[in-house]
Formats: sequence, structure tokens, C-alpha cells
Amino acid sequence: MPNSESRGSRRILWINPVGTDLFDAEMQALFEREGMPGTRVEVRSLKRGPHHLEYHYYGALVLPDVLNMLRRAEEEGFDAAVVGCFYDPGLKEAREVVERMPVVFPAETCSYLAATMADKFSILVGRRKWIPAMRELVERYGLGGKLASFKVLEMGVHDFQKDPAETERRMIAASREAVEKDGAEAMILGCTIEFGFAQVLQKEIGVPVLDATITPFKFAELKAELSQRYGWSASKRGGFESPTVAEIRSWDLGAQYDDVAAVWS
Amino acid sequence: MPNSESRGSRRILWINPVGTDLFDAEMQALFEREGMPGTRVEVRSLKRGPHHLEYHYYGALVLPDVLNMLRRAEEEGFDAAVVGCFYDPGLKEAREVVERMPVVFPAETCSYLAATMADKFSILVGRRKWIPAMRELVERYGLGGKLASFKVLEMGVHDFQKDPAETERRMIAASREAVEKDGAEAMILGCTIEFGFAQVLQKEIGVPVLDATITPFKFAELKAELSQRYGWSASKRGGFESPTVAEIRSWDLGAQYDDVAAVWS
Amino acid sequence: MPNSESRGSRRILWINPVGTDLFDAEMQALFEREGMPGTRVEVRSLKRGPHHLEYHYYGALVLPDVLNMLRRAEEEGFDAAVVGCFYDPGLKEAREVVERMPVVFPAETCSYLAATMADKFSILVGRRKWIPAMRELVERYGLGGKLASFKVLEMGVHDFQKDPAETERRMIAASREAVEKDGAEAMILGCTIEFGFAQVLQKEIGVPVLDATITPFKFAELKAELSQRYGWSASKRGGFESPTVAEIRSWDLGAQYDDVAAVWS
Amino acid sequence: MPNSESRGSRRILWINPVGTDLFDAEMQALFEREGMPGTRVEVRSLKRGPHHLEYHYYGALVLPDVLNMLRRAEEEGFDAAVVGCFYDPGLKEAREVVERMPVVFPAETCSYLAATMADKFSILVGRRKWIPAMRELVERYGLGGKLASFKVLEMGVHDFQKDPAETERRMIAASREAVEKDGAEAMILGCTIEFGFAQVLQKEIGVPVLDATITPFKFAELKAELSQRYGWSASKRGGFESPTVAEIRSWDLGAQYDDVAAVWS
Amino acid sequence: MPNSESRGSRRILWINPVGTDLFDAEMQALFEREGMPGTRVEVRSLKRGPHHLEYHYYGALVLPDVLNMLRRAEEEGFDAAVVGCFYDPGLKEAREVVERMPVVFPAETCSYLAATMADKFSILVGRRKWIPAMRELVERYGLGGKLASFKVLEMGVHDFQKDPAETERRMIAASREAVEKDGAEAMILGCTIEFGFAQVLQKEIGVPVLDATITPFKFAELKAELSQRYGWSASKRGGFESPTVAEIRSWDLGAQYDDVAAVWS
Amino acid sequence: MPNSESRGSRRILWINPVGTDLFDAEMQALFEREGMPGTRVEVRSLKRGPHHLEYHYYGALVLPDVLNMLRRAEEEGFDAAVVGCFYDPGLKEAREVVERMPVVFPAETCSYLAATMADKFSILVGRRKWIPAMRELVERYGLGGKLASFKVLEMGVHDFQKDPAETERRMIAASREAVEKDGAEAMILGCTIEFGFAQVLQKEIGVPVLDATITPFKFAELKAELSQRYGWSASKRGGFESPTVAEIRSWDLGAQYDDVAAVWS
Repeated sequence: MPNSESRGSRRILWINPVGTDLFDAEMQALFEREGMPGTRVEVRSLKRGPHHLEYHYYGALVLPDVLNMLRRAEEEGFDAAVVGCFYDPGLKEAREVVERMPVVFPAETCSYLAATMADKFSILVGRRKWIPAMRELVERYGLGGKLASFKVLEMGVHDFQKDPAETERRMIAASREAVEKDGAEAMILGCTIEFGFAQVLQKEIGVPVLDATITPFKFAELKAELSQRYGWSASKRGGFESPTVAEIRSWDLGAQYDDVAAVWS
Repeated sequence: MPNSESRGSRRILWINPVGTDLFDAEMQALFEREGMPGTRVEVRSLKRGPHHLEYHYYGALVLPDVLNMLRRAEEEGFDAAVVGCFYDPGLKEAREVVERMPVVFPAETCSYLAATMADKFSILVGRRKWIPAMRELVERYGLGGKLASFKVLEMGVHDFQKDPAETERRMIAASREAVEKDGAEAMILGCTIEFGFAQVLQKEIGVPVLDATITPFKFAELKAELSQRYGWSASKRGGFESPTVAEIRSWDLGAQYDDVAAVWS
Repeated sequence: MPNSESRGSRRILWINPVGTDLFDAEMQALFEREGMPGTRVEVRSLKRGPHHLEYHYYGALVLPDVLNMLRRAEEEGFDAAVVGCFYDPGLKEAREVVERMPVVFPAETCSYLAATMADKFSILVGRRKWIPAMRELVERYGLGGKLASFKVLEMGVHDFQKDPAETERRMIAASREAVEKDGAEAMILGCTIEFGFAQVLQKEIGVPVLDATITPFKFAELKAELSQRYGWSASKRGGFESPTVAEIRSWDLGAQYDDVAAVWS
Repeated sequence: MPNSESRGSRRILWINPVGTDLFDAEMQALFEREGMPGTRVEVRSLKRGPHHLEYHYYGALVLPDVLNMLRRAEEEGFDAAVVGCFYDPGLKEAREVVERMPVVFPAETCSYLAATMADKFSILVGRRKWIPAMRELVERYGLGGKLASFKVLEMGVHDFQKDPAETERRMIAASREAVEKDGAEAMILGCTIEFGFAQVLQKEIGVPVLDATITPFKFAELKAELSQRYGWSASKRGGFESPTVAEIRSWDLGAQYDDVAAVWS
Repeated sequence: MPNSESRGSRRILWINPVGTDLFDAEMQALFEREGMPGTRVEVRSLKRGPHHLEYHYYGALVLPDVLNMLRRAEEEGFDAAVVGCFYDPGLKEAREVVERMPVVFPAETCSYLAATMADKFSILVGRRKWIPAMRELVERYGLGGKLASFKVLEMGVHDFQKDPAETERRMIAASREAVEKDGAEAMILGCTIEFGFAQVLQKEIGVPVLDATITPFKFAELKAELSQRYGWSASKRGGFESPTVAEIRSWDLGAQYDDVAAVWS
Repeated sequence: MPNSESRGSRRILWINPVGTDLFDAEMQALFEREGMPGTRVEVRSLKRGPHHLEYHYYGALVLPDVLNMLRRAEEEGFDAAVVGCFYDPGLKEAREVVERMPVVFPAETCSYLAATMADKFSILVGRRKWIPAMRELVERYGLGGKLASFKVLEMGVHDFQKDPAETERRMIAASREAVEKDGAEAMILGCTIEFGFAQVLQKEIGVPVLDATITPFKFAELKAELSQRYGWSASKRGGFESPTVAEIRSWDLGAQYDDVAAVWS
């Protein structure tokens, strides 16, 4: 348990799991503005990789780097981390590779939070392509029965911030339909790059609108504290049991994959 | 949105929904010790009522007083409240009577937190009698598929703190069985009066053990902030729509039920 | 087991769980007309309370009085009782407080009866507000998969009988849509005050239309007989175990709540 | 709607869907004893066929004769019928071939009745062989979540009545295990030939024990009345739509199958 | 295990479970064209019976003959059989009466195949009447969550091949709606008599279209090989345990039902 | 559609998704022995990587190489491929990166095949660690309700073939328990390296035992044919839509990850 000096102090890592730092600075500023007193946050993206994860292949390419970054973050002393993509890439792998550091995911936290505020919720996605994998997530979290609908904006990840007025217009139309026809009582913005629209949308539609940046970020702050004070983090008895450094070294994986040597030693 | 001075400041009400203040002082001390900087907490029990809620009839007796206390708390300026019983009494009623104040419940928050830390979890209850209503809760929250088992301690609410060594012994035996035979990767203490045992049990069993006091209390702190900063609270569009003061007065309910006049005016 | 004289004789209590007797006389006449030979029925409403239960807060206010009325009814010798509201208020509490008297609820009986007559059914409700709690009931009863839809009439409880022609017109339109678009093969009228419309609607639409008064009333007659002859009533081993008079008296609850002293002695 | 003279009068057919009349007389006496005033009951078995339906092939052999018997029964003026086997053979076929006569099935009615009396129930079957088809039924009725367990007595249909003391002994042992280990709050006897044991078992175990003869028989009485007075029977809009006599005659099925000519003309 | 000569050699029986040979020759040609080298196929229809199975009564009439035909087929040395109706008539009965011969069903195989190719699929049916029984099948197979919709063509079984251009036009319109509005990623033709349309529809719509003849036929070829080489066929331990010839003879069923004597001896 | 010469001819790739060729030769021989006439099979393992995938981190490391190998295989003219690990690694990614080549997975095919042969099945796994991810797979495939149990052999992937007599002994004990206590009617060997035990186990236990090598291999043969002749492969409309070469090149991913340049050009 931490001594009283450090109480309320925590370091959070936000990973943009893509090979572009296009959104890093803006998110860094956002989280600094929104953090609790005592929170130090760092936004990092990858040294390589695709610029979005709309295709699952891209998710597979970046995942080893994300997992290594998470393991390194734990060694650097971060108290919690967020993998910033609404596909929740590497949820079970992440909780396996770290020892105690909580790893937080946008779809998981937005879904559970929405479930405490609404009978049913809808998720605003960019393309139909995203729906099957995201519905599978919501169902895996147990909340398939609380999902009113997915609404498609017909935009790619990099379109959301290009013409904010158009994005907003589409979000309002889609949300209105979700609330009026599909029975949604709350909305979730189903991509971290949909940041910045939640408050105006909420005001316009009159139901809570959760965004996929602030929600997991605030949960990461909470999870950091729960881990620091009570040792509550992913169970290591069962599915999240970690591989051993010994085994990884015995196969010389460090020589075979980038970064592995550095973080498993 | 609050000004910067108040940032990180919040008032939390913990309601022990019973007609005894037996546990109030100990819980007050607990929450003061565990609260974040800036959290002011108040523990209140009812002026009347049964001393535990093991029977649903008792839950029905206390519920109007709890709901009126919640509505009054919102008027008093509390930023969040917890109804401190693992049956989550009045979950849908509470979110209906308040306007914006988040109301937090132990089973709901423990279940969702456990689901982010374990494949399956078990719940330690006092008696078999409690199981049907609690399983119904977990299923309603969508997590029936993550429930490994209920384990019965064969103790009433007022027994847990009487002979702590005996309670601990039973908890350890039951948890061991849950982890080894039922596949639980985490444990939840299924009664707020099981407070004080989580840390030792966790150390003994080697899986996360969530207790039903700290978990909802910390969520209440988070929910208070989310409500203050982002206006995120229970949706008022649909099932949680509030009744109107006008209607309540038109029927003169204030003259018919204790406390109603005071809080609906 | 009763002697042959009493065979086919039963006393049924119908509770209108509201603080108005507005519908009592009409329902009394209805049930007297529809009862089997040997059935004596009594319709009672509460001495106080809201005039409808559209808000869950109102349900919480009336529930203690309803439960005490049920317990008293058992002492008075009623053979079965119905709590006449489609939210099925107090289902688990009611089966707990009585010893052997069956307590029947409208949504539960209509849902199970419809399930024996149709692949899927729809429920006609007054307002969208009602849907979440009612869907939760249907799912709790296991019949979520047989629910084609809820159809909203945009009427409050007290509107249904005001302009019957308008009510009928809306019911026909909504039912037609349920049958043709949603795949309903039967309809349920989702409020006890929707009485009197079932037969004309059934004739118009051509599918069975169950109303929420006659259905539970006839089940109450059946349940009374099953209890009298075979001792079949809610199990007392588990979730419906009753509290003891001794415990209630030990806390002096009789002095704290209206009516408690009278019925727990 | 019937005139007042016939009120409370109904004719019920109980079909033993087997090619032996071994149990007919005993069941006839049972139902005459248990029927309401005004109930006339007739027990019929088939002119040919296997002596039990433990194998699904046997069920297929008897089904055409059962369906023709049901259709003829409707023409003869029966007000309701029961197909007396806990596999509920021909449930969807039966509701298709009749026009308005309710057809009642043991597993369906026992399951729904048990669901109103217990959180979970167990079913006593003769052999493991029966379980898959019966569990499929309970799940189809929506009650898979309320099924505590099947308990196997290791007896065939024709064994139950041979050595009643032995049957009773096994039933008690199995029920005790169901209640104590599996969480059952009620028991269902999963074969119509398990008649005669419910009351003693209920007394011994202390939870409701539903048998598969009286339960559907009493529901048949209720269903008869609901059909007579309110026209409530299986919906003809959808899955239970009947074939036409014209089509059956156009293919000359009457010349191809026993009994078809007689009942489809 | 077969010797090497017979490797890749198999006899498949396709049963048209109706009393007309109207489609036999066309299907025989189809399967001969589509079979693997070494496959010998035979299409048989019944000596009597209705000409389609749109009504469940018709299914009950033909089932004994189908089951006897299956059992005889096994004796004749067939390596696998298909019961060619999308209601999958007699699925559990068929696997019970045969000893080792795999019996394949259209809805079962099409559903499982579609589930490996698409997130959700829709089924094209002739009439609304068919939907409840077919949805029940898909749910029984575990795939209710992957069913986007049923689309109704408003055609009977014997209409599909009458005016192929009209059938095709309706199929295209319905499939387009399924893909665009209901989220289907693949289509299934929900009747064996919808043969011949899959390829053109697939080309037009751009998603896989499975038909209900080729799919089960190709699975029958696979199942034949799996049975021949590995002994993989329906488990005889549990629900598919076969009745004994001795019992069938003890009741003299051979004298009571057509064909029984011949196949159970 | 292929010309008649190639009929019955197909090339299958089996990928052992690990960085060791330890099992390649034995599997190559196995598949050559078990393939249909006309099947050419090639077993490949990875140039680098962990020697088993018991930890999800290992799965993440190998996945990009597996996906690139699959895409290259399609270009090389393979007609189907199997990713040979019972975690079904990369199921949705694989169907996305290929254009038309079917990709087959062990858990998916074993589960669906078992579902056509048994009411419930059990899966033999090496360690408890594997269960959560594998149960999630079975549930995702819709078959959670048909899963009797997982049985743990307490062996790692590389232990199965070390002392075959011991492996067999444990498999027999575990299977017996699954069949007798858990209600399994069939068994699945939950690791591709459990090859070689199915036949003896099946003979010993008396229920079908599916192994995780032959089952997906034979499905790959079928899928190859269905793709060749009917164009049936994973839908490209929705979740399996492929990324474009243009986008991958625009980000220069070929320079950033091994093999990417070669297969996306």
C-alpha cells in the first residue's frame, strides 16, 4: 500500500495503437485538462504501423508492439494504461503480459458505464464493416441484451475530425434515430477519434453520450487507485496467467521479434 | 462544469438502508480513510426499520425512506450516493426519483468491476435464501455467464463481525472451493457487512477479492466526478423518467406518507 | 385436503394497488360475471397512495401496504390473491410474506398463457416509459425470446377508459402493426386498466388478445384450487422463505410502520 | 359465448398416446376424482402402438394417430385435450390440426406452473436417455435458466408402478439431492406414469412436487373455460395455421393413411 | 476401416420426404453432376404422402415412412443419407433409428456452414407460416444470434419452379433487403425446392448464397467418409440410443404399422 | 468453375503456427495418409516464433506471420488452409486478408461437427489456463449450450506425445468422467498436438472422439471443393472486407514489418 505522500498520485499511459502521432498532442492536452489532481498522463503512439485499425489485419500487425509497450510501461512505473481503440485490441493478451498494472479498454468501459445509466444504448460507428467485431465485444462483455443498435455514420476514422460540422450533423441524425426508433436511452461514440463531439451531442439529443476517450481515461484513474491501494487488478489465476521470461528466453524470441528482448529480461 | 477550485471535490452519501446505526461509525471511519483527497463522505442509516434486509419484505418496508433520503440528498448537494446493501434495493426506483445525482449499488459495481478482472467470479453469501434474488441481479446486469457460483457461509448479516476468526475461516474454505472447483478467478463479498475481510482473503487465496463497501464507494467517487464534469448520470429518456411534483401534490401524497411532503415540494 | 362440501368453492382477492377506488366497482362486477360457480371475489384498493403506478417510486410507496394486505388476506381465509398491476409489483416479496396463499400477477400469467398459444406475442403499453421494467419482467420469466415487440399507445393509465373509441382505434392500429410487421401471433394488453377491449380487438385483428384482468383472475381461481387440493403454492425452501414474527417484533417494527403490528402478530 | 346453463361444464379428453390401455382405468378414476364440478373426462389410448414412448421412433409411430384422435375429439365436442406424455409429443402439430380446441401438454404446463412457485426446479426422469429431448423442451419454453437439474431414477416407464416402495425410495433420494445440492426449490415428476407419488414426496421433501397428470389435467379445465368464454386458443395466424381439407383430399391422403379419411372430410 | 480399394467410394441416399416423385429426376441429375468421383447417389421419394410439408401435420404423416426408409437404407449399405426438407423433419428420431449411418439435414448443415462464412445470415422462406418452426431449429442449433432475418417470398413449395423468372426476381429483392437492412452477410435458400437459384442470386447480390440441396449433399459425402474411416457418427450414448428389435417385436408393431416388420427384424 | 480434369483435385495448406517444425513431418504423413484422392497437402510451420501458443502473447507474436502466410498461400494457388491451433488464432483476421480461399479452424469445425452428433460434448484441454479463451470461442460459435465441460489433463502442449501411455491414461479417466458425470455424448481433443489418441479413446469410451487435426483437415477438403465449384467462401460484405493494397502501400507498411511487402503487392 502506498504511503500517504503518494496518495492520489498516479501515472497513466494512453496508447494510440497506430503508426501515426497525428492525434497524440490533442489527446495529451485533452487528458491533462481532464485528469484529476495528481494524475500524470502520457500519450504514446507506435513507431510503426497502419494509421487506423479499421481492418483486423492492421490490429494483428500492431498488437505485438502494443503488448510490449504495455509491459515496458509497467516496468517504467505506470499505474494504469489504456489501449485507445474501440475494438479493444488485445484485451486478453494485455491482461496476460502485465503483472499487476490495470489495462483499460474503451468498448469495455463505455459499455459497462452505459449499462449503469440506461436500459439500452446505441453505438455510433464509422462503417458497417466495424459492426460484427464490435457486437461480438459487447456480447462477450455480457451486454448484448442492452444494445439497442449500431448506427453507421459512413465515415472512416480519419474523416471524423476533418469536417466537424458534417460529423456533428451525421451524429445528431443517427442518434435521434437510435433514441426514437431503436429505444436507446444513451449513446456511445464507437471510436476514440470521435472525441470532442460528446458534449454537444448530449445537449442536442438529451440523453447521456459517452465518448471513447474520457470514459476509459477516467476508469484508468480509478483502476490505478484500486490497484495501488487494494491490489485489485486482473486475476493471475486462470486465463490471464503470464508467460515466463525463462520460456521466452529459452526460445530466443528476443532475437526473433523487435522489442521482445528489451521487455522480457 | 465546476470551476477549477472545486475540482476533485465531492460529497458522497452512504446509506445503510436499515433501522440501526450499528455499523455507521465504523463505516464512516472506513470511508474517511479510503476516500480520495477532496471527498467528504457521510454515512446515514434510517430512523426506523429492520436491522438487516435478508427478507425482501424488509426491503419493501425501508425502500420509501431510502428513496426519500436519496432525493433529499440531491437537494442537499451530495454529488453521489450509495445504497449500501448487496440486494441493490431500489435500483430502478432510485435512478427515477433523483434528477442528476448518480446512485451507486454494490452488486452492480462489484459485478462489473469483477468482469474486467476475471473470466468468472463467485459471490460469498450468508444464506441460501439470498441466492435467487442476487442471481437475478447478476443476470439482469448481463453477467450471468460470468458467475462461477454462489458459496454459502451459513451466517446471517449480524454474524459476520461477531467472531471474525470464524468468518474468515469459512470465507477461506468457501473461496478455495470456488477457485478450485467452480473455476472462479475472483471473489466478491456478497454483503456490505462482510467488510474488513477482503485483504486477508485475497492474500490467502491469491485471486482478487472485491468487497461490497469499498468497491461501490470508489465508484461513487468516480460517478460524482463524471456527473460534475460531463453531466453523465442516469438517462431521463425512458425508464428513469421522474414523476412530477405536481402529480404527487395533486394526490396529496405528502399527507399520506412520512417524508414525502418534505422531499417533493 | 378440503372435504367434499367445499369442493369448487374459493375466495379470491383482487388488489388494485393504488390509492383510488375509481375502478373497484367496475372490476368487482366484471369478476363476479366471469367467476366460476363457487368463486367469491372481492376487489380492494388501498386506503392511501398514488392513483396509478406508472412511476416506480409510486410502486415503492404502495408496496408495504400491498404486502400487509396480502398477509391479512391470508389470515382472513382468502384462497388466492391477485396484485392488479402489469408491473407485477412485489412478486418476490408477496410470495415471501404469505405462508401458503397463491399470489398471482398479471404480466407473469399473461406471458405464460400467451406462450402456450403463439410463437411470439406483443404487449400494448401506454408509454415508452413502461417498457424497460416490463421487458425485464418478461425476460425474468424466461420469455424474452417470445416477445415480438412492445407497442406504445401514447396514453396514460387514466386515459384508457376516457374515450374508449379512441383507445380502441389506437389499439387496433398498434396491434395490426405488431401482427404484420413484428411477427406477433397474439397480443397482451399491458395494463389492468386496458380492460374491456380484448374481445373487440381479438375479433378485429384475428389473433388471441389476452387482457390483464381476466387472465390473472382465472389463474387465481386455478391456483386456489391447486393450493387447496394439492398444497401447491410458492416454495418456502429458498428465495421465498418468510421472515419470522419474532424477529419483526424484536425490532418493534409494528410501532414504526402502519399496519405491520396488525398483520405480524 | 356459451349460455349460462353450460357455465362450468366442460368435456376433457386425456390421451395416453400408446398402444396399451394398461393405465387408462386408473387414470380415468384419478381424473374423475380430481375434476371440478361440471368436468366430464374421458381417457383414451390408441388402438395400436408401442407401450411407452421412451424412444423417439415410438413417438413418430404414434403421432399420426394422436393427431387424428385430437381432430376427431374436436368434432366430437371436447373442450380441451391433453396428450399424456412428458415428451410433449406433437405440440406444434396438435395446435395446427385443431381449429379451436386447446391441446395441453405435461412438460409445458408443469414447467410454467413450477416457474411461478420456485426459483429453480428439478425434473425426475427414468433414464438418462430422456434428458436431451426434455431439456430441449424446457429450453424451447424459455425456462432453461430455471432448470436446476434432471435426476435419473434408473427406471423405465413400466417400472414406476411395479414396486411403489422402491420407486418412492429412489424419488426421495433423488429429490433430496436436487434440493440440497442443485438448488431446486420445486420438483416435477417427468413422466405421466409417475402418478401417485407427488403428495408423499412433497410431504417428505418439503417443497412443491408437481405431477405430470394432475397438472396438465387442471390446466386443461382452465383452458377449456378460457376457450369457451373468451375464444382463447392457439393463434391461427402464423405457425399453427391449419392445412385445408381440400388439399388433403386432392392428394387422396385418406386412402393412404389410416383414419385420415374419417377426420379430414 | 475400409480397404484402400473402396477409398473415396460412397453411396448416398437423398430422400424427398413427400408422396410425389415430381422433383426426383431433376435432383438425381443434379447430384450426379455435383458428386465427387466415387459418389453414387440415389434419390427416393415416398410411396405415399402429401406433396409438400408446409404443414407440420404432413410432416407427422410421412415421418414413420422416412424413418423406416432410413433404417432400410443403412441395411442396404448406404454410407449416408439426407432427409431433403428444410424443416429437418425427424432429426432426433433419425439419429436414433440408425446404427451408424450419418443422417444429414438441410437446415442444420446450411446454418453451420453459413456460420463459418458470415457474421449473420438470412433465410428465404416461402411463407410466414414456416418461420416459427424454422427459427426454432436455428435456435436449437445454437445459431439464433447469427440469424439476421427470415424473408418471405409469398410462394408455396410448388411455386418456386413454376415461373423461375418471377422466383428469381422475388429472391433478389428479398436478399437485397436482407443484406442492406437486416445486416445479412450470407443468404440461405430455406427450401430444397428453391434449387437452381443460388448461383445467379449470389452473383447478383455479392454475398454467398447456400442452397438447401447441394449443401447437405456435400456434407453427406463428407459425413460418409468420416463414418467409414473414423467411425464418427451420432453418439449412441444418450439421446440417440436405439430401440431394440426385441422390444418392437414383443409388441408386434410389425403387424400394426406399414414397413415396420421389414426393417426391424 | 473448374474444368472436369481438375475435379476432385485440391491443394491444402496446414499451418503449424509455431516456430518449430517438430510436428511437421508427422502431420504431413498423417494428412497424406488421410487425404482424399486428389488432395495434395503441405504442412508448414513458421520461420520464427514460440514453440506453442498456450499464452495469448505467443498468439499475438505469431499472428502477423500466419496471416501473411495465408495470403501468400492464396497467391500460390492453395484451395484451402487450416490454422492448426485449437485457440483458432486469427479467425476473423484470416477471413479478412484472403480473397476467396477458405480458412479452416480446429475449434470451430470440431464444435460444429460434434453438435451434429451429440446433445452435449466435452473438450479435453491441457491446462486450466486454456479454458476461458476456448469457452469464449465455443460461445462465439453459438454452442455454449452444448458444452458439457472442459476436462483438464494437467499437461502442456509438448507433454502429450512424450509418454503416450500416460496421456492415454489421463484422457480415458477424464473422458469417463465427462461422459458419466457431465453428460457428454461426444469428446473433442482440444489441442492439435493431442493427435493420435482419438481412435483408441473412442473405442475405450464408446462415444465419438473428434481430434483437432483430422476434423479440420477433412473440412478443409470439403471447403476447398465448395469454394472451387460454388464460390462459397467467407462473405466479403461486412466484417471480412479486405484492406486494400493501395492503403497498405501508402503507409509503407512493407518497409516496417517482415513479409508484408511480399504479400501485399
